[in-house]
Amino acid sequence: MNQEHNQHLEKLVEMVKDVRTCMLITNEKDAENLSGRPMGINKIDEDGTMWFFTKASSYKVEEIEISKKVSIAIVNESSQNYLMIHGTATLVDDKSKMKELWSSIMKAWFPLGLDDPDMILIKVVPNEVNYWDSSSSKMVVLFNILKAIVTGKEYAEGEHGKINL
Amino acid sequence: MNQEHNQHLEKLVEMVKDVRTCMLITNEKDAENLSGRPMGINKIDEDGTMWFFTKASSYKVEEIEISKKVSIAIVNESSQNYLMIHGTATLVDDKSKMKELWSSIMKAWFPLGLDDPDMILIKVVPNEVNYWDSSSSKMVVLFNILKAIVTGKEYAEGEHGKINL
Repeated sequence: MNQEHNQHLEKLVEMVKDVRTCMLITNEKDAENLSGRPMGINKIDEDGTMWFFTKASSYKVEEIEISKKVSIAIVNESSQNYLMIHGTATLVDDKSKMKELWSSIMKAWFPLGLDDPDMILIKVVPNEVNYWDSSSSKMVVLFNILKAIVTGKEYAEGEHGKINL
Repeated sequence: MNQEHNQHLEKLVEMVKDVRTCMLITNEKDAENLSGRPMGINKIDEDGTMWFFTKASSYKVEEIEISKKVSIAIVNESSQNYLMIHGTATLVDDKSKMKELWSSIMKAWFPLGLDDPDMILIKVVPNEVNYWDSSSSKMVVLFNILKAIVTGKEYAEGEHGKINL
């Protein structure tokens, strides 16, 4: 791994780590319509791997068994972070990993806790990340938009980068 | 149009009308990865039709010329509205419609205003809408989550409805 790659990963983790809810999109090729649902991102590792808790009996698990190709759409107004992440999903039925990732807030979805037999992890390893990050500071974004309106200059939409992983 | 259909449309408009930014997904079938980008929804009509301003020279316009099938992912933390909308996109090069939809905030992206020759509208007519609306009131959602944690009862994730259009 070179330095640039590490910087890209750091930027990805920085943008994703405080995101509460993303749209996890499955079934990209096999049905009339895409299949998407809001999901909390449990954790993003330093290497960009993302973890989700879900019910083993849920339909999305069936979809991932058929096709591992998924996308994650992030629209985070408060941080002004907008990402489209494409990656490969794996189902991980590993109680020790669940224990490592578990937090008490998860009890809202899994009242039985880690003893719930209908629990599985979805692990997503990204292979392409597109982001629209208007600025590292929200204030600068507001300033740029207002400046653009006042001066008639086109709003520079910040960095639009594709992180190659 | 029957009454139920009208109620579904009203609910859709209610959930979407205050959304600032969605992820507009194109290129669903024709490339290795989906193509998505954050877009402001300029307006949603009473019949559910959504309007977007964009640059006629942008890549998404080329993609829509190839395939009119698009999806709109909405993750609105503040209102707790989460939607996946599937629909058909049309490019509309109609100055009178642009004038009707125009607001001064658009100058941030189109400093030339309505005289900008590189401006086009994307019109999306939805055919399937999935939403996860935890409650009409944010307070009730928080209450439910906390209740679920305290009592060990599974959190009822509110309505999960598919609006058929």
